Amino acid sequence: MDTVALVQETLDRVADKWTLNVIEELHSGQLRFSQLQARVPGISQKMLTKTLRQLERDGLVTRYVHATVPPRVDYTLTPLGESLSEAVCGIWLWAEKHGPDVQAARARYDSR
Amino acid sequence: MDTVALVQETLDRVADKWTLNVIEELHSGQLRFSQLQARVPGISQKMLTKTLRQLERDGLVTRYVHATVPPRVDYTLTPLGESLSEAVCGIWLWAEKHGPDVQAARARYDSR
Repeated sequence: MDTVALVQETLDRVADKWTLNVIEELHSGQLRFSQLQARVPGISQKMLTKTLRQLERDGLVTRYVHATVPPRVDYTLTPLGESLSEAVCGIWLWAEKHGPDVQAARARYDSR
Repeated sequence: MDTVALVQETLDRVADKWTLNVIEELHSGQLRFSQLQARVPGISQKMLTKTLRQLERDGLVTRYVHATVPPRVDYTLTPLGESLSEAVCGIWLWAEKHGPDVQAARARYDSR
């Protein structure tokens, strides 16, 4: 896989609204499934399951099943997931800082 | 527009293969349309025009028409475009460094 394709795949993945939200929430620490669902408004149980499974498959999230009754399942970012979260942070900060600039540029362009 | 939506829109934009390629090429300096087309293999004239127009509208690229015969048109990143390029660089480096880790994690997951 060449680098551009790899970068593009990574960006595609983190551009997904649910993936982005789940990574951001887990960045603050481990959470249970139900806690995640409560913190990501609008996510369905099915979509959260799918998102977590993809992140687990990519080695970005660890799923830890406690031997309790009823069983408790915690999700945490792996060190790899933490490093991705930090890389995404650069774009996050850019968008927060420069979002208004982009919107102003669009307004100028559209009015000419 | 809330921050998550803004970050997501930015990620969506830079996850676009052509946008990502054009930003990366212009990061090294100004280029003419024909030079850009030669450096981004597979891009059609129509798609390059569309990509550049979007980047110009967002205030990320400047289009400079020289008063020559025939007219020459140069494209450069604006300071805003440069700053986005640098933010994307963090993800780029992450993907280069950790792409193999993600692929290894997937192989492990799929074989269990």
